[in-house]
Amino acid sequence: MRADAWGVIYLDCNATTPILPEVLEAMLPWLKDGYGNPSGSHALGRRARGAIDVAREQVAGLIGAKPDEVVFTSGGTESVNTALHCFDRLAGSGRAVVSAIEHSAVLRTVESLEREVWLAPVGADGVLDLERFEAGLAGAAFVSVMTANNETGVLQPVAEVARLGRERGLAVHTDAVQAAGKVAIDVRETGVDTLSLSAHKFHGPKGVGALFVRKGLRFEPLLRGGGQERGLRSGTENTAGIVGMGAAAEAARKFLADGGGGRIAEMRDAFEKRVMASLSGVVANGDPAKRLPNTSHLSFDGCDSAGLLVLLDDAGVACSAGSACMAGKSKPSHVQLAMGIPGKRARSSLRVSFSRLNTLAEAEEAAGLVVRAVEKLRSVQGPGVGPVVVYTS
Amino acid sequence: MRADAWGVIYLDCNATTPILPEVLEAMLPWLKDGYGNPSGSHALGRRARGAIDVAREQVAGLIGAKPDEVVFTSGGTESVNTALHCFDRLAGSGRAVVSAIEHSAVLRTVESLEREVWLAPVGADGVLDLERFEAGLAGAAFVSVMTANNETGVLQPVAEVARLGRERGLAVHTDAVQAAGKVAIDVRETGVDTLSLSAHKFHGPKGVGALFVRKGLRFEPLLRGGGQERGLRSGTENTAGIVGMGAAAEAARKFLADGGGGRIAEMRDAFEKRVMASLSGVVANGDPAKRLPNTSHLSFDGCDSAGLLVLLDDAGVACSAGSACMAGKSKPSHVQLAMGIPGKRARSSLRVSFSRLNTLAEAEEAAGLVVRAVEKLRSVQGPGVGPVVVYTS
Repeated sequence: MRADAWGVIYLDCNATTPILPEVLEAMLPWLKDGYGNPSGSHALGRRARGAIDVAREQVAGLIGAKPDEVVFTSGGTESVNTALHCFDRLAGSGRAVVSAIEHSAVLRTVESLEREVWLAPVGADGVLDLERFEAGLAGAAFVSVMTANNETGVLQPVAEVARLGRERGLAVHTDAVQAAGKVAIDVRETGVDTLSLSAHKFHGPKGVGALFVRKGLRFEPLLRGGGQERGLRSGTENTAGIVGMGAAAEAARKFLADGGGGRIAEMRDAFEKRVMASLSGVVANGDPAKRLPNTSHLSFDGCDSAGLLVLLDDAGVACSAGSACMAGKSKPSHVQLAMGIPGKRARSSLRVSFSRLNTLAEAEEAAGLVVRAVEKLRSVQGPGVGPVVVYTS
Repeated sequence: MRADAWGVIYLDCNATTPILPEVLEAMLPWLKDGYGNPSGSHALGRRARGAIDVAREQVAGLIGAKPDEVVFTSGGTESVNTALHCFDRLAGSGRAVVSAIEHSAVLRTVESLEREVWLAPVGADGVLDLERFEAGLAGAAFVSVMTANNETGVLQPVAEVARLGRERGLAVHTDAVQAAGKVAIDVRETGVDTLSLSAHKFHGPKGVGALFVRKGLRFEPLLRGGGQERGLRSGTENTAGIVGMGAAAEAARKFLADGGGGRIAEMRDAFEKRVMASLSGVVANGDPAKRLPNTSHLSFDGCDSAGLLVLLDDAGVACSAGSACMAGKSKPSHVQLAMGIPGKRARSSLRVSFSRLNTLAEAEEAAGLVVRAVEKLRSVQGPGVGPVVVYTS
């Protein structure tokens, strides 16, 4: 069952995913003979340009966009930074309105701007409080609300957010980095102005992402230079990475159309069922229905997640607590604080995230190993004792 | 002699270079089983983190820096944008002083800032006019001067620039994207505060670069989020790309130490010698001594470079005119204008750039093909006639 080459059951798929074999296959020619600069005036350049055009159609296809609405970037963080800086430069005065559970790419970026930030609250279920959000739009300049939360997997009412924003003439961004490839996304249905994607979250390579920019939207680039990506993002195109993102987007589109989300949910649900049947004092955090099919976020009474992670790492299970972007920080995650989860419960939480490359047998085996780790830790620590928590992606 | 799989003699190495086989070899494990997020709290994450640490030492080794002075980015453009935005946010009032021949990554970025820009002139030889530069430092806020020009290959007096800047308390950036891997670079000797690198210019992968940030320098990140790269550049690390950049840096360091630059200059010189011996009306642009060993920038009386590029592309020679970042633009390059090269001569120029993967035989063969193309064009066009020029990287 330990399909992974390192002998590890890899259940940290919200942090990153393995590249699919067919994606790497698609990339390799562009890491070898297809090295021409896509801006070059010769055959090698034209070949690379053509491959990027195909990838642009594939990524557009995953989110219901037109190809010329897709701008390739170096990843989700650059996409988010680009969208928010663009809004900041072009919007009038007013507050940046973002949900309290955004990824740090959104939070740290809006904090760096010279304007007030309002953090829209979520309920105990981890879902944006739409009523308070709407009230908070008075005095807003622009909006950013994620499509799905990276820690809990909880889906956010982005279509409602976009409608409320549009009614007020506010530009709306959504960070869809965790949602893409796991649930269907349609930029026409949700009506957002910009949307951020990262390839490595859906079995593409690291170091490449995309920003959807709705046709007709005023835009200012963040990275300036040679004018690549129709002037919206300068820098020599990462041909192999872009081709890999395109192939991964195409694979994800087919996988979702084929009901793949349901198969992942089966693994996740089997894992949760077994853990909760075998242990007392386990709480599943976040709305149990409105969440990504792959994410399980559990708290274990009397366990410290840092200790749990060490035991699971030893047992060959890779997972995390909170967000990898906060590794080594010894405080409960801002997501759990926003949900009103008490500190002790927050510090005893584990995030287990599956992908299409996992199996039902791995889910069952991992559940058994989690149960054993929790029992061991409880027998040693007793409730409420232990080292500070390590929050990971 | 046509070692390239496409049957092309590739002489556009200032636009981009092929990945060395040993570099791809180093990257592959991180595109396959080494997919763990370097921030992850498990064995897979730690392995990736370790590989990045090694790459950081290798890149530092290429430029004489300490490993913790190297920040990985998505490429030269991001590095340049990061350095200049950082200076802009932290410097007091005053002008941005940059050379008139900077790459568009520098020019477009400083133009976008809310401060005056002064373009320091160069001589007819393409070298920065140090006297006028020094005079222009009155009222400067910060400085950016490239190490080597991408079109002509002409080396700039960066150590002098840095000294003059330091004497006045001005932060100094150098865009070393074209110089790295072609000539020795030592950040301690030159004394710059920040320096930009791009992996794909020295046989590494596209989509990864680095910014040298001198220890002790005040710094503000451009991309904010998860706090990777010690908070200086957020975004999940592109492990494979970073490892590839490290391997390419290590290979370049050894190649230069082993006198590789001289071997490349031999090819370039043989090419120029044969072309100039066979044709009249050829001018080599830029200082013939103070230039990169790999770059030849020639103008051909009575030829339009757009026509030349078409004929050479047909003949299986990949090269360019000006800069790939300006492909499709029909104006003489800003570099040639700054050097005072007349419009007609500027529009008849070709940039031929070699790498260690070329051979002397290719240089000779390409020279013959260039001679034939020029003769053909001259017989058809007559002097001064032809389509608008296509400037390419």
